[in-house]
Amino acid sequence: MATPTGVGTEELRRANLRAILQTVHTHGPTTRAALTKQLGLNRSTIGALTGELQSLGLVSEETAAVGGRSGRPSHLVVPREDNVVVAVDVGVDRIAVALVGLGGGVLDRRDRTHHRGEHDVDHVVDAVAQMIDEVLGDASGRRFLGVGAAVPGAVRAGDGLVRFAPNLGWVDAPFTDLLAKRLGRPVSTGNDANLGVLAEHVRGSAVGFSDVAYLSASVGIGGGFLTGGRPLTGASGYAGEVGHLQVDSTGPECRCGAVGCWETKVGENVLLRSAGRLPGGGPPAVAEVIAAACAGDDRAARAVAEVADWCGVGIRAVVNVFNPEIVVLGGCLAQVWRAAEDLVDEALSRSTMMSPREDVVIRAAALEDDAPLIGAAELAFGPVLDHPQAVPQAG
Amino acid sequence: MATPTGVGTEELRRANLRAILQTVHTHGPTTRAALTKQLGLNRSTIGALTGELQSLGLVSEETAAVGGRSGRPSHLVVPREDNVVVAVDVGVDRIAVALVGLGGGVLDRRDRTHHRGEHDVDHVVDAVAQMIDEVLGDASGRRFLGVGAAVPGAVRAGDGLVRFAPNLGWVDAPFTDLLAKRLGRPVSTGNDANLGVLAEHVRGSAVGFSDVAYLSASVGIGGGFLTGGRPLTGASGYAGEVGHLQVDSTGPECRCGAVGCWETKVGENVLLRSAGRLPGGGPPAVAEVIAAACAGDDRAARAVAEVADWCGVGIRAVVNVFNPEIVVLGGCLAQVWRAAEDLVDEALSRSTMMSPREDVVIRAAALEDDAPLIGAAELAFGPVLDHPQAVPQAG
Repeated sequence: MATPTGVGTEELRRANLRAILQTVHTHGPTTRAALTKQLGLNRSTIGALTGELQSLGLVSEETAAVGGRSGRPSHLVVPREDNVVVAVDVGVDRIAVALVGLGGGVLDRRDRTHHRGEHDVDHVVDAVAQMIDEVLGDASGRRFLGVGAAVPGAVRAGDGLVRFAPNLGWVDAPFTDLLAKRLGRPVSTGNDANLGVLAEHVRGSAVGFSDVAYLSASVGIGGGFLTGGRPLTGASGYAGEVGHLQVDSTGPECRCGAVGCWETKVGENVLLRSAGRLPGGGPPAVAEVIAAACAGDDRAARAVAEVADWCGVGIRAVVNVFNPEIVVLGGCLAQVWRAAEDLVDEALSRSTMMSPREDVVIRAAALEDDAPLIGAAELAFGPVLDHPQAVPQAG
Repeated sequence: MATPTGVGTEELRRANLRAILQTVHTHGPTTRAALTKQLGLNRSTIGALTGELQSLGLVSEETAAVGGRSGRPSHLVVPREDNVVVAVDVGVDRIAVALVGLGGGVLDRRDRTHHRGEHDVDHVVDAVAQMIDEVLGDASGRRFLGVGAAVPGAVRAGDGLVRFAPNLGWVDAPFTDLLAKRLGRPVSTGNDANLGVLAEHVRGSAVGFSDVAYLSASVGIGGGFLTGGRPLTGASGYAGEVGHLQVDSTGPECRCGAVGCWETKVGENVLLRSAGRLPGGGPPAVAEVIAAACAGDDRAARAVAEVADWCGVGIRAVVNVFNPEIVVLGGCLAQVWRAAEDLVDEALSRSTMMSPREDVVIRAAALEDDAPLIGAAELAFGPVLDHPQAVPQAG
């Protein structure tokens, strides 16, 4: 166990402020009566706490006519979406930037495609900064709380250095520092799958689940995990690299230097090549192969079946290691799962062990390709959700 | 995030009582002055809290002459080891039962070998109950807090049903219920590796680390994990089954029904067979092969090298998935690591990815084969450590 520390009353107050703010940020406008019930605190305490959040400019209170026996109106506590963050998702094929308000609403957004040859980190920082200027253009009168960014790679927890993002060709790329200097503001960067699982947990397929595996494949495979309701980060923020589990000792060499990694068997380009197509083309090209398989194209069907089998092998590993309540699939994994659930399931069930399989739910990501972007917004909201009293005040 | 709940002052008091009791249970007798400093609470609060623990019969206070400028004696808060639990470790080759006092001291212990043919669950329950009677024989004047048991299998969190313990031949074995009925007391049962990591964290090689992987091999491989300081259990208590990661798609069939699982490549009997010995014989037989390899026996050397390589492959998977600060090796894995660290390391470093390898510490288990037993004692102490005020009081 961690070294235990004592708890004082100030921390208790902060914990309660945090609980209220997280509730309205996640679930939307909530009556004081509902907060009283949900948090198990008395009415006057809730009133004092929501009053403090109001004076911090984080919530407003509206009078709502509610039903019930007394017919008394109840105060509705509403997250103020003029508290904004910028979320960035640097993918392999596109960059997305969104302006997101407290409560999770996307107020504005830009998307831009980019390709190999445009992945130079300075070039990416330029593009992102320009897109941020665009979405912030109309942000006067709003309180800007921060920038969160998702990248498809291993991100060092302490300083956001991107240690290794093979599909961008980045090694020790100072993306976070460069963007922060360019903007004159701090930037928080996380692994796209770690942010994806967060988003799916807060607003997607995994709401209400505490043990969640999020697996998303495009070119590589990203894995993000919640265990006991908390993000799995590992010692330095690199946890979740399930794409590099060795599943085939005879299998092809991987970009990582090892042999037979799961992501050499599953992914957009693996499927495309195996179906006799050129690599590249992303989700639409994968959809075309799946359509061809359904229409009777034997080679496409064999490719889908083979990838589906390897999907099952990898998901089985994840289920055996994490015993999750739910596995949320994104990208190419979701496409293959939808097309060939029975084949994935067959591989998944091949082990007759005690099989945590029997209870696990498997679903496609509700936020689809936006999960990392929405997760990046949650990352940027993190500090204020964790410590509402420390929100920057005007003047 | 989990649904936030409010925190009241009663919970705060409980948290502080818990912090003090855990501190003295883990670290031994501690002065009030040190507790004041460590927990960040004031002296009178600490005095009131230790007074309450004293009246609950969980600690005693002794006057200790301590140094320092004032020369004033400080109160030493001592865990009372007349609060006892019984710890049980059901291995494949032996059963161990220990009487353990608050503070972690082993007051008495029994070991008994058992073998295939003696693994019938009723037979095991009989043997364990008899051994418990023996260690409890002299327990008059002691307060008996509970029984914790470790088994090499998947244990359902809710009721302790042993879903699958292949090396005991158990499927859905009601070990926990049978033992509880026999003793007339509740029994808590956990997976041996999950309890092993707990023990190594509290009293072994992993003290002070928050992200810990404990990997222990005998016949099979057990994996137990701490992530962010907390045990990884998964949804139903089955998490950590890294022995069934597929590492070789061509590899032999595993008892679990799948092919090429890590534990078909590593383990006592794998090494023994590969070295031309008969399976069985446990750690001494493994030690004999290692000694022969060192003495120039080619076949033994090749067997050790091959197993060492597969050790590295599996440990690499664990490092990539969990990004632990430390990997603690038990059983046959510790033996092979000690004998052929360079070979394990070579396989481990084969991936040139961002390599969380660079920061990870690898150590043999300090508690050696007793880690699950010590962890079972911690399991049994869990309820009183979590809620000291609920400790049973004499009629």
